[in-house]
Amino acid sequence: MIKGALALLVQGGGENWLPHLWKERFLDVCAGRPIVLLPDEAVDPGEVHYAAVWKPPAGALAAFPHLRAIFNLGAGVDALLADRTLPKVPVVRVSVDDLTKRMTEYVVLHVLMHHRQQLYLWNCQRQGLWEPRAQWAAGAIRVGILGLGTLGLDAASALRRLGFQVAGWSKSPKDIHGVESFHGPDGLEPFLKRTNILVCLLPLTPDTRHVLNRRVFALLDHSSPLGAPVLINAGRGGLQVEADILACLNDGTLGTVTLDVFETEPLPADSPLWHHPGVIITPHNAADTDPEEISRYVARQIARFEAGEALDNVIDLARGY
Amino acid sequence: MIKGALALLVQGGGENWLPHLWKERFLDVCAGRPIVLLPDEAVDPGEVHYAAVWKPPAGALAAFPHLRAIFNLGAGVDALLADRTLPKVPVVRVSVDDLTKRMTEYVVLHVLMHHRQQLYLWNCQRQGLWEPRAQWAAGAIRVGILGLGTLGLDAASALRRLGFQVAGWSKSPKDIHGVESFHGPDGLEPFLKRTNILVCLLPLTPDTRHVLNRRVFALLDHSSPLGAPVLINAGRGGLQVEADILACLNDGTLGTVTLDVFETEPLPADSPLWHHPGVIITPHNAADTDPEEISRYVARQIARFEAGEALDNVIDLARGY
Repeated sequence: MIKGALALLVQGGGENWLPHLWKERFLDVCAGRPIVLLPDEAVDPGEVHYAAVWKPPAGALAAFPHLRAIFNLGAGVDALLADRTLPKVPVVRVSVDDLTKRMTEYVVLHVLMHHRQQLYLWNCQRQGLWEPRAQWAAGAIRVGILGLGTLGLDAASALRRLGFQVAGWSKSPKDIHGVESFHGPDGLEPFLKRTNILVCLLPLTPDTRHVLNRRVFALLDHSSPLGAPVLINAGRGGLQVEADILACLNDGTLGTVTLDVFETEPLPADSPLWHHPGVIITPHNAADTDPEEISRYVARQIARFEAGEALDNVIDLARGY
Repeated sequence: MIKGALALLVQGGGENWLPHLWKERFLDVCAGRPIVLLPDEAVDPGEVHYAAVWKPPAGALAAFPHLRAIFNLGAGVDALLADRTLPKVPVVRVSVDDLTKRMTEYVVLHVLMHHRQQLYLWNCQRQGLWEPRAQWAAGAIRVGILGLGTLGLDAASALRRLGFQVAGWSKSPKDIHGVESFHGPDGLEPFLKRTNILVCLLPLTPDTRHVLNRRVFALLDHSSPLGAPVLINAGRGGLQVEADILACLNDGTLGTVTLDVFETEPLPADSPLWHHPGVIITPHNAADTDPEEISRYVARQIARFEAGEALDNVIDLARGY
């Protein structure tokens, strides 16, 4: 039996997204299956059974009448789901331990940088100043995680291990040992009012777009030794209103922020975020997952699917994640 | 019965070391005991039974014939033990959870900063450059902790939780779940040869002085995705040879370093360490412990000692820690 082809369509740039390397990886892990690199390589559209994609242009998958499943090679599916011509087949998101662990590294690093006043200390170092400030313990700080999926849960547990008081907010109720859980629209305000460091790991959906806005920032708690609260967004740029972030940094509603994601990426050279003294910018690299792990994950799912088992981590199109 | 006085002698500067605040704290926690603030307040030397000190000048404690115990209010006792006139009474070091947790915060923060290429990312941000580099996972990095006392053990466990491969070296053998342990002079070379990020938490003793030198750095492993190895010293400045650190940074023997402690503190304004692009400097604030916790700890120990129990955490003068 000839196996249906896997069409590979990878865009977006960066060392992790070189199309020919993805083709090599899939050839390695999908024994005997034709791997077609789009848009350059020719294929009979009827032979394509699977697509593995990152940031495909809208309409690119509409041509394949026998498509059975779409595998998104990165974490966010918001761009993919915005394509109204997307075939009505299961869309599978990446869920590998590697991604979760990397996001936890990022969240722990940035919570600690703000907690330990690293922006102040960098500034002292640049000026050659030895001026230690009083430092509080992690137990004095309440971290709040927006989004308690796989990523949020793991980050919460690692932060708890370090002594922070951790709570989380999610759409539906969760019961997590040692983590105070809030949920639903009514739970958001009490969650924000107890939070000193807000970590956003939400997916981008019509419900969550622009959730990181002035009204939300104004509810955060200023009473910890940290002073003005901190925002860390490692979710999606569409979750944040950048004009509100800047205005809130400038009027003291926010103290300092870390942003890994932006309304426009790459962040435009003229964005005032680049040079704001209260802002730490990373180039959307919070959780660049190992491509080897992702291609193995996709190959495993296809093999199980063809053996009659269900696909894991299928996107709920109604929820959008 | 009138209680023997506690003499308080605190120097060193910084918000945490204001003598009058320490007096207030001890008055709060040592019910009814006279607290004498040296050198300003007068006291009959024979009435002083305890001393609580931070960086006392040499000879300052020799005057008290009935001294029963000396409590050192910070973590390192090297300066105190160098005083040859020190009365022959037990010297007690601080061992409070708060100190351990803060050191773990610091170690985790700085391991993650180097692992996640934060010096490179800062530099990009300053120049307004969106240039993500490939990032490896924590599992690809071998952290080695020099010193497996209370601090080293807790840091090792937190780093393991984040996925790093963790080993430790100590003077005597240790058996720690999930942490490869090396010990003694013969264990040092194999420990260094497997280590990509070297974290030093050793006490300063005649044996450990200048242990962080070129010979040691040259043994570290360059084969991880991190490239040249990293040094983090949060122990004591006397452990390091700063000229070797600079030379090794410049010739690629070391990649980047974090130093919290220095041969001379404050770090002199003309030290080239301040402005070296591979160096993160913090002003000896890795584990500034909550003074309230320390004063309660001392009061608890005195109460138990007077009830006939043994003092905890007494320094072994032969080992020097």
